[in-house]
Amino acid sequence: MSVASHAPDHIRAITPYQPGKPISELAREMGIAEASIVKLASNENPLGMSTRARDAARGALADLARYPDGGAFALKAALCARFGVKAEQLVIGNGSNDILEIASQAFLGAGRSAVYAQHAFAVYPLATQARGARGIEVPAKHFGHDLDAMAAAIAPDTRIVFIANPNNPTGTFLLGREIEIFLAKVPQDVLVVLDEAYTEYLSAEQRYDAIAWIARFPNLLVSRTFSKAYGLAGLRVGYAIAHPEVADLMNRVRQPFNVSSVALAAAEAALADDEFLAQSAELNRRGMVQLTDAFAALGLEWIPSAGNFVTFKVGDAAGVNRALLQQGVIVRPIAGYGMPHWLRVSIGLPEENERFIAALRRALA
Amino acid sequence: MSVASHAPDHIRAITPYQPGKPISELAREMGIAEASIVKLASNENPLGMSTRARDAARGALADLARYPDGGAFALKAALCARFGVKAEQLVIGNGSNDILEIASQAFLGAGRSAVYAQHAFAVYPLATQARGARGIEVPAKHFGHDLDAMAAAIAPDTRIVFIANPNNPTGTFLLGREIEIFLAKVPQDVLVVLDEAYTEYLSAEQRYDAIAWIARFPNLLVSRTFSKAYGLAGLRVGYAIAHPEVADLMNRVRQPFNVSSVALAAAEAALADDEFLAQSAELNRRGMVQLTDAFAALGLEWIPSAGNFVTFKVGDAAGVNRALLQQGVIVRPIAGYGMPHWLRVSIGLPEENERFIAALRRALA
Repeated sequence: MSVASHAPDHIRAITPYQPGKPISELAREMGIAEASIVKLASNENPLGMSTRARDAARGALADLARYPDGGAFALKAALCARFGVKAEQLVIGNGSNDILEIASQAFLGAGRSAVYAQHAFAVYPLATQARGARGIEVPAKHFGHDLDAMAAAIAPDTRIVFIANPNNPTGTFLLGREIEIFLAKVPQDVLVVLDEAYTEYLSAEQRYDAIAWIARFPNLLVSRTFSKAYGLAGLRVGYAIAHPEVADLMNRVRQPFNVSSVALAAAEAALADDEFLAQSAELNRRGMVQLTDAFAALGLEWIPSAGNFVTFKVGDAAGVNRALLQQGVIVRPIAGYGMPHWLRVSIGLPEENERFIAALRRALA
Repeated sequence: MSVASHAPDHIRAITPYQPGKPISELAREMGIAEASIVKLASNENPLGMSTRARDAARGALADLARYPDGGAFALKAALCARFGVKAEQLVIGNGSNDILEIASQAFLGAGRSAVYAQHAFAVYPLATQARGARGIEVPAKHFGHDLDAMAAAIAPDTRIVFIANPNNPTGTFLLGREIEIFLAKVPQDVLVVLDEAYTEYLSAEQRYDAIAWIARFPNLLVSRTFSKAYGLAGLRVGYAIAHPEVADLMNRVRQPFNVSSVALAAAEAALADDEFLAQSAELNRRGMVQLTDAFAALGLEWIPSAGNFVTFKVGDAAGVNRALLQQGVIVRPIAGYGMPHWLRVSIGLPEENERFIAALRRALA
C-alpha cells in the first residue's frame, strides 16, 4: 500500500479547482507574445490597482525578512473604522478563498453537511468535500439562488449555508430584503456564509448592508475580498466579518501568518481609496453595456450580471473557447459548473472588450 | 445553541499558535520607537533578503491585479533545476506552515493519528488537532527527537510522522544516517514529513541529501521554506518535495492561489542567489559563537543548536522575558513547548546580539 492510497476517499475524489488560464501559459503554448494576449478569464480589475495600494506594497518590500503581523492590527483597525465593527469580529484571509476554507475547517467534517446552490462558486463544494462533509446542492432558479428551496434543504446535520451575492459565474443577484427574509428562516445555529466578493460593483440601488445584520443574525458571516474591485488578486487578501465567537473559532484554525506583509499593507491603503473603487465600478458599468450590446447584435443569450463579468451562451462552448484562445483571447469555460454551453467573460478595458467581441464574431462565423 | 457551540470539540479546544511579539505591538504597548526595539523572536534573517529577490518582488508589483500563477510554473522550474526533481513532485505552500497544514488535510482526520516529538514545532500538534486526529507525542531525548521511540510509537492508524531537523525551538540535530535508518523502519504507507526549515544553516559536515532518498522512500516528504535563511518570511512561501502521488493529493486540497505573485517571483530569484545564503550562514555561525560565549560567561545552560537560534535556561523565564521586553528586546518564551524555564533567542546582527546580551545581563542581575 502506498501513502497516497491511504488518503481518505473524499480527498482522493477531489477534482481540483480549474483557474483561468494564465497569460504566461497561453503564451508558452501558442508561442506568442504575452503582450498580444487579452485575458478576460478571472474577473480581475482591468484598471490594475490603486496607486495608493501600490505605494504601500512598495513600502512593505523594505522589511520582508520579518514575519507579517499575524494579528493584522493595522488592517483590522482600518476595517473597523470603515465598517463600524470590532476587531474581534474580523478574520483576515489569504484571499476570501481562505475565508471559505477556514469556515469549512472550523464547522464542517464527517457527519455534517453544507448547503449551496447549483452553478454557485466552485470553492463551496470543494471545501465541503475536502472536509469529508456532505454537500447539498440546491437546483438553481433562473441560474441564481433559490433561497426558499435552500432554506428547505437545510438538514439537521447542516452547519453551513453558502450564498454568493452576486453569484460567480452566473452574475445573478439577490435583493437585500430577500436575503434578510432568508436569514430569518435559517436556524440560528447554522452558519450562513454570505460571499460578497463582487459587492463593490453593485449599483447604488442594489446596495444593502449585510454587516449591520450581524447584530440580529449572529450566525451570519460576511465574506469580502480585495481581489476584485480593489485589484489585489495577485497579493491574496480577503476578510470575514462575523460574530466574535465565530471569528474566534476561525482564527484558531487560521494559519498564524496566512497573509503576507505586502498584502496587509496594500489592502489597508486600498481601503482608503474610494475614488479608485468608483472609477472601477464606472468602467465596469460601461463595459457591461459594451459586451451585452455585442451579445444582442450577435443574437446570443446572456445572463444579466451584477458582477464584473457576463456569462453568455454559445452552444459549442469548448469549440468557441478554442477559437478564442487561437486568437489570443482567454475567457472562462464553465462546463465544470454544469454549464457546458456557456462561457464567462470578464469585463476589461474598452479595447480589450473590443478585441474579445471581434474574436468572438470570428469564432462564431 | 449558537453557531460556535456546534463547532467540533477538537476545534473548540484549539489554543492558537503564539507567534513572536511583533515590533509594532511592543512599540504600542511600551510607547517606544520601533527603531529602538531589537526583535530576536522569530528566527528571521537579520541580513534581510537577497537584493535579487527584492528586485524580483518589486517587478511583480506591476501586475498585482492578476491572480498569481496557481501552478507556479516558473518557481517549480527553478526548483526542478536546483534539486533534480520533477515538477509533479512539488507542492508550493504559503510558507512551509501551509505545507504542514495541507499534508494534515490530505492524510489526517478522525480515527487517524500523527506521531511527533515532545518539544517539536508547535504546528505539528496544532494541525493534527485541527483535523480531529489523535496526536502521539513521543518524549524527547536530550531535547531532540528519539527516533527509535518514534518508530516504536507508530500505531496502526498513524498516517503521518513529523520530524524537524534541525528542530525548532530546541535546535537539536539528527545526522542524515540516523534519519535514513529511521526511514527504513517506518511502514511505507505512513508519510514521513521531514521539516527542513533551517537546513540552509547546516555546516558542510552536517549536510545530507534527503531529496535523493525519495526514490528509495516514496513515503518521504521534504518540507522547506524561504522564510528563514532566504529572508522572505513576510512574503509566505515554502515548498514540499515528495513522490508525485503524494504531491498530487496535496495539490488537490491546496488553495488554488495560495501563494502571491510577489512571493513566487521573489522565491525564484532568491533560489539563484547562493552568495546571499552563504553570507547568511556565515553571519549565523559567528553570532552563535557570540551568544554561546555570553551564555558560558553568565553561567547559563544552553542547548547546542544547528539552527539560527539558541534555547537557553534562565529559571524564571517569564520574569526574565518581561525584563527583556522592558529593555526593548523581544525573545521567545517557550512555556507552550513544555519548557517554562527556557527562552529561545534568534541570532541577529552582531550589535543586536550585543544589545540582547547586555539586556540579559541586567535582567538576570
